[in-house]
Amino acid sequence: MQARYFTINDYPQGMPQPELFELHSTELPALQDGEVRIRNIWLSVDPYMRGRMSGVTTYIEPFELNAPLEGAAVGEVIESRDPRFSEGDKVRHMGGWRDIAQLDADTLEALPSIEVPEQAYLGVLGMPGMTAWTGLNEIAKMREGDNVLVSAASGAVGSLAVQLAKAKGGTVVGIAGAPEKLEWLESHGIKAVSYRGKDAQQLSEDLKQACPEGFDVYYENVGGDCLEAALDNLRVGARIAVCGLIADYNATRPSTAPGNLAIILIRRVRMQGFIIFDHWSHYPQFLEEVGPKVAKGEIDYEETIEDGLESTPDAFLKLFEGANKGKMLVRL
Amino acid sequence: MQARYFTINDYPQGMPQPELFELHSTELPALQDGEVRIRNIWLSVDPYMRGRMSGVTTYIEPFELNAPLEGAAVGEVIESRDPRFSEGDKVRHMGGWRDIAQLDADTLEALPSIEVPEQAYLGVLGMPGMTAWTGLNEIAKMREGDNVLVSAASGAVGSLAVQLAKAKGGTVVGIAGAPEKLEWLESHGIKAVSYRGKDAQQLSEDLKQACPEGFDVYYENVGGDCLEAALDNLRVGARIAVCGLIADYNATRPSTAPGNLAIILIRRVRMQGFIIFDHWSHYPQFLEEVGPKVAKGEIDYEETIEDGLESTPDAFLKLFEGANKGKMLVRL
Repeated sequence: MQARYFTINDYPQGMPQPELFELHSTELPALQDGEVRIRNIWLSVDPYMRGRMSGVTTYIEPFELNAPLEGAAVGEVIESRDPRFSEGDKVRHMGGWRDIAQLDADTLEALPSIEVPEQAYLGVLGMPGMTAWTGLNEIAKMREGDNVLVSAASGAVGSLAVQLAKAKGGTVVGIAGAPEKLEWLESHGIKAVSYRGKDAQQLSEDLKQACPEGFDVYYENVGGDCLEAALDNLRVGARIAVCGLIADYNATRPSTAPGNLAIILIRRVRMQGFIIFDHWSHYPQFLEEVGPKVAKGEIDYEETIEDGLESTPDAFLKLFEGANKGKMLVRL
Repeated sequence: MQARYFTINDYPQGMPQPELFELHSTELPALQDGEVRIRNIWLSVDPYMRGRMSGVTTYIEPFELNAPLEGAAVGEVIESRDPRFSEGDKVRHMGGWRDIAQLDADTLEALPSIEVPEQAYLGVLGMPGMTAWTGLNEIAKMREGDNVLVSAASGAVGSLAVQLAKAKGGTVVGIAGAPEKLEWLESHGIKAVSYRGKDAQQLSEDLKQACPEGFDVYYENVGGDCLEAALDNLRVGARIAVCGLIADYNATRPSTAPGNLAIILIRRVRMQGFIIFDHWSHYPQFLEEVGPKVAKGEIDYEETIEDGLESTPDAFLKLFEGANKGKMLVRL
């Protein structure tokens, strides 16, 4: 059986170009004992993948050059030589960026039984959703009534973070760019602040206007000017959950760091970076808490969908233009 | 009775000049019920006082212009109208920057009975010592065997931090400037690294050489290049206790922030600012743990002493030139 997959041919500096990605076709070897063959239905593209294209080990190994790229995916079992999986089973796994995946059965998860569209397990009930929940609860230790600021607030992670924060009360402010993203935030009771055309000082003033009492929690997805503006508006004892710094991911120079880092001292701020893979043992608790809300339609999640395996690199690159609302997915 | 005291006549930008300080003399009013009159013996000058000269409320109210400055002091009661204190008692209080203090008895502490020189209660067993202990234990949650980096490692706070860290094992590295400070560190089993004449990258390389495995804890007193170099050398899960950022205290421009702040995300670092006044309820525990060690000579603490009330502004200004080894004190 033929499988098609993407590779990268270099570790790029700066913003990756479409030429970086190469589509290959190969004849799959015969299935071995303990292996499963899956026809992928949904592929996930995520900002963290940029880190795996840098050639250095950060919190996760770099992608291997000219080998199939990896990423979360949902698919259907088409052949199984493992007793745990049968033809027709829906599974989640890390063999994305390809149409047919042939994997060790130990690396597959059966999809949970909550009644949601299957691609939700790549978004609101997958890694991004789990990231939002963990950042707010485990890292920032959000309390009832806390005022919360979220950057990239309409993204896959941010859009769930603002809704979970709003459910626990307090003023919730989201930073985003495009008018339709700001509208989406406002329609969910989130105060929306645009970063477009603003330097850190202007952004800081707008945040102050949105929440004059200041923030107890800052959920950080962006870095750069957003971090500087946020620091200005923190209350004493505030907590920053550093989930992402997408402003820097394609930077070729050191980032322009905030000039007001002394606020960490003056206002006794705790700033903590985290990687969701360290916290995956809490996934069942997350699923129990958030899953039913998603099934009942109490959580609104957006998807931006590109069609066809060939569109995967484009879908990935669009993440850095802010072109996605909610979770960016590729449908095969 | 006449008392002499210092005031400031302005809130300065940048490094304060000696002309900022004015020495006054006044006739003290008669002692009221509940008041105590103290002849000061030791005055403390501390970097945090710079913050009180900025005219803005940070974590502590600014000094009032043309009113007696405040600061920790140890003195002897010369007259009391409160049953808790008698002539001859040694007390610690905040009525420093003056020779005779007349204070509400509620604001005085009798000196603890541990047999140490009385000025130790302004240094190793006072606010700076308590700050070192709290930063390591309560904020950075140092564990046995952790590798620990301390900036301003021969200062009043740093010199205790390195010794407490060393006692719990692991590699302890201290950053300092003057050769005699580096020698002092080495003589206590601390690896000493000089910051002099180095940019962040050079300092980073020297730290890597001193502790190739990287640091679990960074005790931050300085900021600027020290922070950048330290970030480069942190291990996954490291904790930064931000006690001070003396590099910035006299800055007239925003500080040059580290360009590698993304390490907080990549290595899941927790960075936390703290102010010792929030943690003072642990003072008895600190005293119980560290006091006997000081009394037995197991902790080496240095003092830099200036003589005479008139020298107080100079003693304070020298803190920002790194002219002190250990605690800077004024003896009256």
